[in-house]
Amino acid sequence: MATERVAFQGERGAFSEMATLQYFSRPTLVPLRTFHDIFSSMQNDTIDFGVVPIENSIEGSINEVYDLLLDADLAVSGEIYQRIRHCLIVNKDTNSLLKTVYSHPQALAQCRHFLQQNGLDAVSTYDTAGAVKMIKEKGIMDGAAIASRRAAELYDMKILQEGIEDKKNNFTRFFVLSHSKTKSTGRDRSSIILSVKHMPGSLYSILEEFAKRHINLTKLESRPTKETPWEYNFYVDFEGHLEDESIKTTMRSIQGKTSFLKILGSYKKADLR
Amino acid sequence: MATERVAFQGERGAFSEMATLQYFSRPTLVPLRTFHDIFSSMQNDTIDFGVVPIENSIEGSINEVYDLLLDADLAVSGEIYQRIRHCLIVNKDTNSLLKTVYSHPQALAQCRHFLQQNGLDAVSTYDTAGAVKMIKEKGIMDGAAIASRRAAELYDMKILQEGIEDKKNNFTRFFVLSHSKTKSTGRDRSSIILSVKHMPGSLYSILEEFAKRHINLTKLESRPTKETPWEYNFYVDFEGHLEDESIKTTMRSIQGKTSFLKILGSYKKADLR
Repeated sequence: MATERVAFQGERGAFSEMATLQYFSRPTLVPLRTFHDIFSSMQNDTIDFGVVPIENSIEGSINEVYDLLLDADLAVSGEIYQRIRHCLIVNKDTNSLLKTVYSHPQALAQCRHFLQQNGLDAVSTYDTAGAVKMIKEKGIMDGAAIASRRAAELYDMKILQEGIEDKKNNFTRFFVLSHSKTKSTGRDRSSIILSVKHMPGSLYSILEEFAKRHINLTKLESRPTKETPWEYNFYVDFEGHLEDESIKTTMRSIQGKTSFLKILGSYKKADLR
Repeated sequence: MATERVAFQGERGAFSEMATLQYFSRPTLVPLRTFHDIFSSMQNDTIDFGVVPIENSIEGSINEVYDLLLDADLAVSGEIYQRIRHCLIVNKDTNSLLKTVYSHPQALAQCRHFLQQNGLDAVSTYDTAGAVKMIKEKGIMDGAAIASRRAAELYDMKILQEGIEDKKNNFTRFFVLSHSKTKSTGRDRSSIILSVKHMPGSLYSILEEFAKRHINLTKLESRPTKETPWEYNFYVDFEGHLEDESIKTTMRSIQGKTSFLKILGSYKKADLR
């Protein structure tokens, strides 16, 4: 049997790859350059699954992924929590003083205090592991990359310091994108997107439908509609499966109260580890 | 009388400077490098006001500013809407083909389609106007900056194309930070931060206090608490002034339902222009 083709964003060694390997047992790994590439490869059917970061416990939501979910005709079929432990990585024969640190903007943001304390300039790259590859290929000696231990090992580089993130409670939550919906496991979470005509009572009356059936909301995120300034889409995560009777009823009752409603899917809740 | 010392983030010519000049008639302009610098200069009392972007109609909230508001002992005393119209700016004697475009990550994101269509690589800088200054000082000929018309004029550079943003409905909303609270103007908005013990019914029961007094919520934003993964602070904007009787009552009634409540301030609603 052919293994599943699973795409993630970034180079080999990215935290997304670690998340992918945590969830899939023997995937064919497909590293892609952008989140957009993952969504379009899914739409073209050239991959079976996509693994995309949705929020980080320190930095918050990954806005670009939220925006891509709005337009995609895909199901969310899984979630993964990946611990983010950043390493300061250099070329093995580095001797000189460090001036610059290269990494993905979010990784740089997560190590802000560390960089400030050490007087290091931050330069953005498109990927954490990609920054490791870049300083290796270019032979940069007065620069370091911030990435995972796995990236350092994969590119045979030296770890100068491990755990340089400002806050240790650093986890990223990933969504698994798939072509089909999942069955209930009894320990599920669901995700939807909705918008309301006017904020005042309407959002409240939608949340009321969840509250009166004791359905736990676990996340509420707003994103601009991009059509009209200061109008928002709301991304709602809640406990339960879309096939549960109480949730079916809730979806039916909020349908009339929303100006837009999109079901992303239900999936087994992940454990923090 | 001494003019007001007003700080904004970025170099002269930044969109933040344009917003500042829209709001203050004859300020002493204090350009600072980071948002953090603005907040700490306010706390040290070395400036009278700070102007910080809070959200953009396309890209959404400026997370770093939201996070700084949480810890700051300051009042929000005004809001400003600034139209964002991006220009592709080059050195006057550029002849060669463009390869790279430099700008602030959010400006690059707002021109994503334009950059992709023209096969241009994006490199992040800390500021839009700063990118113009940088390509001028370094004499970069195969690169351009994305910034305001004002930045091009200020640094005596050439505008290759104007209005390269992907969506024309592009506005940034700014907060004016001050040392003291403002009086009611009759056309006000207010901002608070709150958190709830558990999401299910608690957020709903807080929104209920607003809904039953017909107070219009205009924004609801969530940010991770950074203490416990997947717990959030909610930033709520609503119409009215904190000195209004109905809003005073609302604040008293939500006090007991929140595990944290912080009043940012009330301010005259800005007009889109």
